[in-house]
Amino acid sequence: MLKYEEVAKHNTRDSCWVIVHGEAYDVTEFLPDHPGGSKIILKYAGKDATEEYDPIHPPGTLEQNLPKERCLGKVDPDTLKDGAAQLQRDKKEVGPSIKEDKIPPMELCLNLYDFEVVAKRVLKPTAWAYYSSGADDEVTMRENSGAFGRIWFRPRILRDVSKIDFSTSILGHKCSMPLYITATALGKLGHPDGEKNLTIAAGKEKIIQMIPTLASCSFDELVDARIDENQVQFFQLYVNSNRAITEKIVRKAEERGVKALFITVDAPQLGRREKDMRMKFDDVGSRVQNDNKDNVDRSQGAARAISSFIDPSLSWDDLNWFRSITRMPIILKGVQTWEDAVMAAELGLNGIVLSNHGGRQLDYARSGIEVLGEVVPKLRERGLFPNPMFQIFVDGGFRRATDILKAVAMGATAVGIGRPFLYAYSSYGWQGVQHAIQLLKAEMEMNMRLLGAPTLKDVVPEMVDTRALYTHTNTVPESSGSQVYEKMSTAIGKAGDAATIADIADKMSKL
Amino acid sequence: MLKYEEVAKHNTRDSCWVIVHGEAYDVTEFLPDHPGGSKIILKYAGKDATEEYDPIHPPGTLEQNLPKERCLGKVDPDTLKDGAAQLQRDKKEVGPSIKEDKIPPMELCLNLYDFEVVAKRVLKPTAWAYYSSGADDEVTMRENSGAFGRIWFRPRILRDVSKIDFSTSILGHKCSMPLYITATALGKLGHPDGEKNLTIAAGKEKIIQMIPTLASCSFDELVDARIDENQVQFFQLYVNSNRAITEKIVRKAEERGVKALFITVDAPQLGRREKDMRMKFDDVGSRVQNDNKDNVDRSQGAARAISSFIDPSLSWDDLNWFRSITRMPIILKGVQTWEDAVMAAELGLNGIVLSNHGGRQLDYARSGIEVLGEVVPKLRERGLFPNPMFQIFVDGGFRRATDILKAVAMGATAVGIGRPFLYAYSSYGWQGVQHAIQLLKAEMEMNMRLLGAPTLKDVVPEMVDTRALYTHTNTVPESSGSQVYEKMSTAIGKAGDAATIADIADKMSKL
Amino acid sequence: MLKYEEVAKHNTRDSCWVIVHGEAYDVTEFLPDHPGGSKIILKYAGKDATEEYDPIHPPGTLEQNLPKERCLGKVDPDTLKDGAAQLQRDKKEVGPSIKEDKIPPMELCLNLYDFEVVAKRVLKPTAWAYYSSGADDEVTMRENSGAFGRIWFRPRILRDVSKIDFSTSILGHKCSMPLYITATALGKLGHPDGEKNLTIAAGKEKIIQMIPTLASCSFDELVDARIDENQVQFFQLYVNSNRAITEKIVRKAEERGVKALFITVDAPQLGRREKDMRMKFDDVGSRVQNDNKDNVDRSQGAARAISSFIDPSLSWDDLNWFRSITRMPIILKGVQTWEDAVMAAELGLNGIVLSNHGGRQLDYARSGIEVLGEVVPKLRERGLFPNPMFQIFVDGGFRRATDILKAVAMGATAVGIGRPFLYAYSSYGWQGVQHAIQLLKAEMEMNMRLLGAPTLKDVVPEMVDTRALYTHTNTVPESSGSQVYEKMSTAIGKAGDAATIADIADKMSKL
Amino acid sequence: MLKYEEVAKHNTRDSCWVIVHGEAYDVTEFLPDHPGGSKIILKYAGKDATEEYDPIHPPGTLEQNLPKERCLGKVDPDTLKDGAAQLQRDKKEVGPSIKEDKIPPMELCLNLYDFEVVAKRVLKPTAWAYYSSGADDEVTMRENSGAFGRIWFRPRILRDVSKIDFSTSILGHKCSMPLYITATALGKLGHPDGEKNLTIAAGKEKIIQMIPTLASCSFDELVDARIDENQVQFFQLYVNSNRAITEKIVRKAEERGVKALFITVDAPQLGRREKDMRMKFDDVGSRVQNDNKDNVDRSQGAARAISSFIDPSLSWDDLNWFRSITRMPIILKGVQTWEDAVMAAELGLNGIVLSNHGGRQLDYARSGIEVLGEVVPKLRERGLFPNPMFQIFVDGGFRRATDILKAVAMGATAVGIGRPFLYAYSSYGWQGVQHAIQLLKAEMEMNMRLLGAPTLKDVVPEMVDTRALYTHTNTVPESSGSQVYEKMSTAIGKAGDAATIADIADKMSKL
Repeated sequence: MLKYEEVAKHNTRDSCWVIVHGEAYDVTEFLPDHPGGSKIILKYAGKDATEEYDPIHPPGTLEQNLPKERCLGKVDPDTLKDGAAQLQRDKKEVGPSIKEDKIPPMELCLNLYDFEVVAKRVLKPTAWAYYSSGADDEVTMRENSGAFGRIWFRPRILRDVSKIDFSTSILGHKCSMPLYITATALGKLGHPDGEKNLTIAAGKEKIIQMIPTLASCSFDELVDARIDENQVQFFQLYVNSNRAITEKIVRKAEERGVKALFITVDAPQLGRREKDMRMKFDDVGSRVQNDNKDNVDRSQGAARAISSFIDPSLSWDDLNWFRSITRMPIILKGVQTWEDAVMAAELGLNGIVLSNHGGRQLDYARSGIEVLGEVVPKLRERGLFPNPMFQIFVDGGFRRATDILKAVAMGATAVGIGRPFLYAYSSYGWQGVQHAIQLLKAEMEMNMRLLGAPTLKDVVPEMVDTRALYTHTNTVPESSGSQVYEKMSTAIGKAGDAATIADIADKMSKL
Repeated sequence: MLKYEEVAKHNTRDSCWVIVHGEAYDVTEFLPDHPGGSKIILKYAGKDATEEYDPIHPPGTLEQNLPKERCLGKVDPDTLKDGAAQLQRDKKEVGPSIKEDKIPPMELCLNLYDFEVVAKRVLKPTAWAYYSSGADDEVTMRENSGAFGRIWFRPRILRDVSKIDFSTSILGHKCSMPLYITATALGKLGHPDGEKNLTIAAGKEKIIQMIPTLASCSFDELVDARIDENQVQFFQLYVNSNRAITEKIVRKAEERGVKALFITVDAPQLGRREKDMRMKFDDVGSRVQNDNKDNVDRSQGAARAISSFIDPSLSWDDLNWFRSITRMPIILKGVQTWEDAVMAAELGLNGIVLSNHGGRQLDYARSGIEVLGEVVPKLRERGLFPNPMFQIFVDGGFRRATDILKAVAMGATAVGIGRPFLYAYSSYGWQGVQHAIQLLKAEMEMNMRLLGAPTLKDVVPEMVDTRALYTHTNTVPESSGSQVYEKMSTAIGKAGDAATIADIADKMSKL
Repeated sequence: MLKYEEVAKHNTRDSCWVIVHGEAYDVTEFLPDHPGGSKIILKYAGKDATEEYDPIHPPGTLEQNLPKERCLGKVDPDTLKDGAAQLQRDKKEVGPSIKEDKIPPMELCLNLYDFEVVAKRVLKPTAWAYYSSGADDEVTMRENSGAFGRIWFRPRILRDVSKIDFSTSILGHKCSMPLYITATALGKLGHPDGEKNLTIAAGKEKIIQMIPTLASCSFDELVDARIDENQVQFFQLYVNSNRAITEKIVRKAEERGVKALFITVDAPQLGRREKDMRMKFDDVGSRVQNDNKDNVDRSQGAARAISSFIDPSLSWDDLNWFRSITRMPIILKGVQTWEDAVMAAELGLNGIVLSNHGGRQLDYARSGIEVLGEVVPKLRERGLFPNPMFQIFVDGGFRRATDILKAVAMGATAVGIGRPFLYAYSSYGWQGVQHAIQLLKAEMEMNMRLLGAPTLKDVVPEMVDTRALYTHTNTVPESSGSQVYEKMSTAIGKAGDAATIADIADKMSKL
Repeated sequence: MLKYEEVAKHNTRDSCWVIVHGEAYDVTEFLPDHPGGSKIILKYAGKDATEEYDPIHPPGTLEQNLPKERCLGKVDPDTLKDGAAQLQRDKKEVGPSIKEDKIPPMELCLNLYDFEVVAKRVLKPTAWAYYSSGADDEVTMRENSGAFGRIWFRPRILRDVSKIDFSTSILGHKCSMPLYITATALGKLGHPDGEKNLTIAAGKEKIIQMIPTLASCSFDELVDARIDENQVQFFQLYVNSNRAITEKIVRKAEERGVKALFITVDAPQLGRREKDMRMKFDDVGSRVQNDNKDNVDRSQGAARAISSFIDPSLSWDDLNWFRSITRMPIILKGVQTWEDAVMAAELGLNGIVLSNHGGRQLDYARSGIEVLGEVVPKLRERGLFPNPMFQIFVDGGFRRATDILKAVAMGATAVGIGRPFLYAYSSYGWQGVQHAIQLLKAEMEMNMRLLGAPTLKDVVPEMVDTRALYTHTNTVPESSGSQVYEKMSTAIGKAGDAATIADIADKMSKL
């Protein structure tokens, strides 16, 4: 068995060993081919990289990409401990701003925003940056929530609302509410059990989970984590340029009992998310220092690194092929115009998800809920809505049962929620996810009662006023731009001797 | 007579005694049945609970719910004093942020907002939370005031406005202005005299008070508090699942001279108000501590606890029954669409209150004033407006005489104001309420003069421009959501050595 | 001659003497009749009241209101000095936040806002409160400026703009730009020369001044202050309930060469301005102290006190009478709807001022510029515009030449500016007013050049886009209301042990 | 050779010598004629003025304006060093807030905003003020960016986007993207190489540069700086009142290979930019001091001083003359209405730039992108669009590839970017500009992929929703005006003893 001290010697670009899950690997020759750049590996040259490796790579990644002879065998665990301790001292990594034993009790989370507020402090900054970031100036990400602020209710009175039933059926599968857990990547950044937390909570609350292609857990782990055999799961697919791999994945999903295939069509390339990208510069010094060094690694955040396999040439023509390799219903995830919605319906697909990928892809894409307001009337005009064989889903910015009810009133079968459940398990494990779902259910019951709608069928278009939904009156976005403009100066602010006066004036103006 | 020391021994779940109004009660067996949960009682096990008990329970509650034998008799007052002193020391409760002898003189309150600012500091945090909270993200609560900001005046000139008369008649009863005091619950949280403060001020200012079902004072107390026999009162009714109880209440109200019955139709269940709910977690420790304890009591605020009797199956069919048991005019409180307004008018009811329950029930319900703008034209189209036998009332967010005049111009007979009067008596007793009404009257006189309208009949639809009223351009609501998004980082904000630079930059950007 | 010590003894309600301009008066019997309340006089009982008396009362007020025998004669100036020194020590009045010798050089004022920023610090708080205050929540006052933000330019290119001419003619009188100085009250609050500063600057810059009824200077003083005989002045009239007084005033104005009569029609009563009112409570203690005292004087600010003579019964029928007593052109100041504009034009009056009295009267009255957009098309439809015999003026919120050019493009002959000139002379005397006018002229020249409009005739309706002008999307007004709502709490904000965490979190969220 | 000590003696208005580039000049007689005022020269009387002289004056200015005999010859460099050191000590000028060796590494700049944030700290305050300032209240300058916030995307899916091509052709010249570097003045304020930085980066990235009339570098320097002979440059022209000079400039540009002539038509006079103007008062003391001094120099910022030659009488009639002196295509820069766009097209010109001069000329001019939305449909109606011989360009506020794509979708051939490139080279030289262009290209590739548009031809009008673009709902501009209004007071804020309470309350309200 190798000793840690031996591994530690190979800590250069010329001979670079790393330890993952107790085994040492020689990655010297692999360095230039690493999709995430060589620099991130060199950071761990001669060290144990498991902690950083794990959330980004599904089980088996290393084995599939390295020749067997590069695996150098187990490292003596006793020597490893010292190494780990040394590593901790070396890293000085910025950790969460709240220690685990100070996390507020889960019961203090009264709504889905609360989980986000807690997670912001519980997650490591890099994980927070990856989960919470959006495209460009994050205008679309904010708009996703903001759009609900332009839809208002028209509640009815004096209806018998003693019994409220919000159960429904998605693609023929019963579930407890018009909600599914949508696919999100790199689940282990938030919690060692990764997406399994979602599987368990979904099972317990009779909610459907959509398994992501880019999960930290392996596909099998997530299927195996179901609480019983009847638990329904869907699968989200990034299509690989190598169709053979895609075919293998799809066939396996069907074999293992997955009930529907959601093909992502809004991400031919994964987005530039600057909050995430800034995190990669942690160890970059000042300009002067850098001039004497290697080129800075222009790593562009976690997602970019792992998404190079996605096929940007995917087109409408490919859809028949998918129908030839699976009997699962096929749904397009990421439709953003009525024109594409009509095409999908006319092609006989089984549904669409109106989504902008959580505001992480194209900035100034409209919110899913706004697109829903455009899509349904156009489908209806063409006799394509309502249609039990073609269901409409929406995701993006859903945080409240009122948000869900707005979507249902406007014609959605169900809505997808992603980030809030990641935040929930990052702090509280699967129990957090369950608590979040239960909070939504409590809100659903209350709000349907107050709407005068005992069942989802009673949640009709007339119950929402969407006239303002299509009005976008943002001025300078509350993001990058607003940090650039300066408040204007005044006579007082510039008078030669007015430094102190200006201070006083400023304080006065704030009273 | 019992001694306090004896009571103090029964301070566990297995034997739990409490003192209320000088008498001891054994509530051990009642613990699991308490609508507000057992935990809140256990907090006072072996102690005097009068102070917390009083504002939440109308007189007689204890007697009606406990078997007589559980009343253990009077506690020796001398021993009780020591107990009270001990309790004070134990409680360390967070009190108001302003001491009573430092309350600003009432004359400094120049408008209804001022009472709210003062009350925020005079009230205990729990009382403030109960009174001031709204549903979910409090979007509707804020919109209730905000909607008035989208209605502008078209004042006329050169009319003789030497005499201004804003007296009117509500359901046939004269009153000094188009205003009534609407029903609010738990009045003793703000002041030991509770809703009696409203009764006295209403009498003195010739305003009509609507007595609430959930008053802290008993119904009889509020009727008896009238300053003379001619003082008019209305009654607000939450309908009980047990109709016999409801019938008893309604018949009694009529017998005691109440002049109209306002049936609440927007609250089949009382709302989730998170500001209120958060207060209930005061004594909850950190996560670690809690893991070793009983389940946390998921008490959801004061109102939820006391409202379980409300019948969620109440429907249009029940209205004939009400007409069979009373000759009082019947008004529906909580109408929010023109469809329901038309139904009420066609059914021959005597009026409607356009209300969203002060923003405390369904978030994103529209403001009463906006609904008024929708309802009146639809009634007019059908020949149902104007109609002296079917009056329209509005409440929600009224703070200024200009608000009232906007409603009158748009067709309302009168408007209801609730919270501001609670705030007024919380700091200044009934004199505060009277002062608040007098301020409104002063504003009414001034503003009618400036509008060129000597009487309420002269306040016509052409005097308001409501075109913008129906425009909702909120983006991310200024509440939960806006606390979640982060300002974006910049190159300076992340440079390795820029910590101090960023500080300077931030300060600079604020100059 | 009286000695100061003698006067000083009469310092009670039972015997109250005051000194004004070196003469002592016995005002004991006058106390209850003082329009501003007795309390303000008692503050100066036995003292020299000149400084507070002067700006509020035009010369001669005392003589006209007190019986001659109450004038007790001159006070020995030597003894008075000591008294004045004593008074200074007694007063401890809050003064300006900037000392006179630290006022920034006038050249630092680059626009009209600058004068306001400086004046805010140069004026005594009471004077600032009187000048700067608006009605109720000051929504209309802010809207007056804000409305210009909804009008945008459509500038034309490649026109010869080497010579720019913005001179014009108002009611037949030539002036150097489409601007007049509008009437404002109590000019000595800002500067001992009061409105004379305006007269001088207007003369030097060939601008017309409108003399106010409520000037601190007497009418004669302001006419005498003209820099030459050809300087044109207008007169603003508050109509007295005693028409004989009004007739005397009007006839005198015409005799002394005033060229037009602007009758104020938007102020049958002067407004409630709470910022001004709050100043009157300076010496009010806490509640407890007050309970043992006299009733607090509910003085409602300076303007209310001096405006009781205004006739609220003034109506259209009175206008013929005005035409019978003067040959001056008659203009209605304060028209706010097209209906009244049409009536004025059809009646053969000579013009109207679209104004809401600087936002000081009816809150939620629309801005003059918005009303202009409504009035002109309606007059045009009826063949009443353009009409050289019926000119349209606007005031309210004008601060930039672009504001003026927007009004001209929309059909105004000229605009009125008031407060900014008060602010200008408060810091810099008449030179400040001149500088302010010169700044506006420099802006006019630049902006007409950039608009492609060499003369005012070239400033046509097509040069402005006013489509957004009629959109009012304010939500909660940025004034009283916005101070009442609280930011919502979160799980972190309320966790038992999270006090410090919340602090950190708050700081983090601000980075 | 002169010694520095000799020069230093001539430091008064009566005998004023200055040193520029090592030569001494006697400027005594030139003082009153200096377009920027005499004061700024007197500041350097007897001293070396090179540093301040250089960025504002193109090479040769001094030689052309002074008689030869006023050049006194070289100053001994050894003596000059001491003088320079002395000058440094004298100046105490406020420098940048970030030292050069602390500038963040260029790689930290992830978008164009980042360069601005860095430059704000790297530039001297005077340079920052000149570059970043806008007209009046900077409303148009902010709107230029803000307008993009009202245009949203309608992206299409399932299109083959494996290859993205955003190359295009401007006026027949190929370039790598639909972008050119637009003309900006005084480039040496930011970097000693001035506009040459732009030339080099443009060459390397195959982008076209527009050479400005008011460059700090001479025209020849910028042509010579091209990286090869095929590099395309355009020329921006301010037309001189003296047409002979203009003709000379234009002919020279054509001779030296410039490919197009952009005639500025929105600046008959250069704008009042108050941020820039305030900088000129640096050495102005308090009022008292000033009263004893010379008149303050009312210098109005750098640009005003150097622009007096611009001909304000330029008109449509002059355009034929331009066509007679050059065969270069002629484009009008600064068109702001459809009327003028139609005139330009009908006149057979080669294109227009929809621009408001970066918000530096007429405040409340609309953004170029908004004008584009007005112009294209009107041209189309008249059969003037699309037209390969008449291209439409836009500038103002472009910061993101999404901004560029919006303009392309709406009909623009290319867009101009100015300030961001100045900021880029101010911190990082030409490499900064190159990095900025590369960032835009990375964004272009990503965003076209996400839009479903492999080439610029696929970026069609249906891909943008511009319905909200024409809605201007600004209220009080977030600039001068907003600093003038005060938050309203409340009862608590004014209570006699409430000073500390108000403090607490204020802090509470911020939690």
